[in-house]
Amino acid sequence: MDGIARIAVAEVERAVAAALRRAGCDGENAAAVAGVVAAAERDGCASHGVFRLGGYLAALRSGKVDGAARPAVSRLAPSVLRVDARGGFAPLAMEAARAQLAPLAREQGIAAAALVDAHHFSALWADVEPLAADGLVALCMTSYMPAVAPAGARVPFFGTNPMAFAWPRAGGASLVIDQASAAMARGEVMLAAREGRTLPPGVGVDASGSPTCDPAEVLKGAILPFGGHKGSGIALMVELMAGALIGQAFSVETAAADNRDGGPPRGGIFLLAIDPARFGDAGGWLDHAEGFLARLSALEGVRLPGDRRAANRKRSDAEGVEIPAKLWAEVLAAAGT
Amino acid sequence: MDGIARIAVAEVERAVAAALRRAGCDGENAAAVAGVVAAAERDGCASHGVFRLGGYLAALRSGKVDGAARPAVSRLAPSVLRVDARGGFAPLAMEAARAQLAPLAREQGIAAAALVDAHHFSALWADVEPLAADGLVALCMTSYMPAVAPAGARVPFFGTNPMAFAWPRAGGASLVIDQASAAMARGEVMLAAREGRTLPPGVGVDASGSPTCDPAEVLKGAILPFGGHKGSGIALMVELMAGALIGQAFSVETAAADNRDGGPPRGGIFLLAIDPARFGDAGGWLDHAEGFLARLSALEGVRLPGDRRAANRKRSDAEGVEIPAKLWAEVLAAAGT
Repeated sequence: MDGIARIAVAEVERAVAAALRRAGCDGENAAAVAGVVAAAERDGCASHGVFRLGGYLAALRSGKVDGAARPAVSRLAPSVLRVDARGGFAPLAMEAARAQLAPLAREQGIAAAALVDAHHFSALWADVEPLAADGLVALCMTSYMPAVAPAGARVPFFGTNPMAFAWPRAGGASLVIDQASAAMARGEVMLAAREGRTLPPGVGVDASGSPTCDPAEVLKGAILPFGGHKGSGIALMVELMAGALIGQAFSVETAAADNRDGGPPRGGIFLLAIDPARFGDAGGWLDHAEGFLARLSALEGVRLPGDRRAANRKRSDAEGVEIPAKLWAEVLAAAGT
Repeated sequence: MDGIARIAVAEVERAVAAALRRAGCDGENAAAVAGVVAAAERDGCASHGVFRLGGYLAALRSGKVDGAARPAVSRLAPSVLRVDARGGFAPLAMEAARAQLAPLAREQGIAAAALVDAHHFSALWADVEPLAADGLVALCMTSYMPAVAPAGARVPFFGTNPMAFAWPRAGGASLVIDQASAAMARGEVMLAAREGRTLPPGVGVDASGSPTCDPAEVLKGAILPFGGHKGSGIALMVELMAGALIGQAFSVETAAADNRDGGPPRGGIFLLAIDPARFGDAGGWLDHAEGFLARLSALEGVRLPGDRRAANRKRSDAEGVEIPAKLWAEVLAAAGT
């Protein structure tokens, strides 16, 4: 069972969808979740790929997540949508949110969606990239369960609290910045633990608050914020925007309410969309940014955010993705094939 | 001339306003700028206090800034304002922006202002705090002249690119996070150079790209982003939001257009306001956040962002502020008193 399997992206998507349907998802929810899982594998983001399938399945089996939930969209204010995921996985609710948020942003110039009662377990770039591909600037934030120690503290309190920003490009893939406010995403720490790798210094502390490079010890202790008190500031902003602002739980409350089945807890997501054509430079903004990005990427040593993902995507579409054979066998078993 | 002068905050404001008027500001612009300068001294933010007066005055004398500019507000889209500072200092334009952005955010749920052709030289928290005091969540970004090396590079390309976030509190001062995406604000590096202090490691590199703790060498070289590639990602987002999105210059373009008189260059500011009462938990969001912030600040070692500013403010209002005597003498001379 050791070794690496090379699998076509479409086959990853098919198998994951089949496994989700077997565990209780309806077709639409299974397709939406399988889409973001396969996209993560395709883009080289293994920490949010099929590695997460076990958590999705556990959350269906425990009854925490409703695999047949239908999101409901309502309008809270002229430029604000509420998207109730009704206890389902986030991807289908995200699709519903984007479908109404994009035209609303074009009409209003800027608009936001409060996604509530969603179970989010995927990479955040997958949520904002479609908006940028549609010509909109997007910003998204979500919290999670406590994993990160606020600056100065030594115990987990913030979630890893990612923030993703997407900017439309003139050609090819959008520019997407997706970063946890943790020094390392929890999924990466989990993956390092699973694969027996050590962490770089400065990523986390153990249960006693002492620095450690052992991912298993960090998972019992706390991850540190990136960049000290500034990363901690970002984490705090994310808690407030994806928590109290939209009437959803803070990470510490999320943990208290979760059944610990290993799947994604219930929580909220803040999603913002901006139409650059309504901000004063309708004819020029795109080329203006392209010129700037060309100058930036011409600097020695610089790689644009998302460049690696784009390269992985191209290769994966041509050659398939590499997945540990043992993990892939688990996926196939769950899919009943 | 050595030593420290202790000055009442109102006297700082009066002297700065007088100096600005003598150099060509009209009363309204002088009052708006003097307000943010005095607020910076009051809150212990010396890098944006009277230390900056020389730059303000230079920009008036060179004719780069119009000290009698009247900002003009127009509506670009239902939820988007354009605030044309018309080549004046930012503070009066910010006042005009907030006056119309606050009611628009209440009406629409969320609204943004594109401030253009403004000369911004003050601390960003001063721009967002009044919105939070008014019950709104606020987010603000602006770029500057190249000072920060993008992650992987060793030459200045990004501005120090601050982002400020403000959250209303139930009592007392609002929570305000204001952080440069540089490892250290350029004003702090300038102040360290002026006062002959060395910098902590990791703040910057010299003109040859080598690490240095000498602030004068860093000012000739580049400041590093905070938190490596993640801080660099924030800096890039700020460039795009305060640049191409609103039809304003990127930091590299700003520098090319500036006359190098030492005063603030012309540029844009992105300002966002959100009414939490329109996001789904109108009755609960404030107390919900207060409970969370109480838990956070109860953690050992944690200080909430802005706590130090609030303490400084209280002390300054009672005891006045401490300003190097030589600098204060320069202020008085400029004020003609």
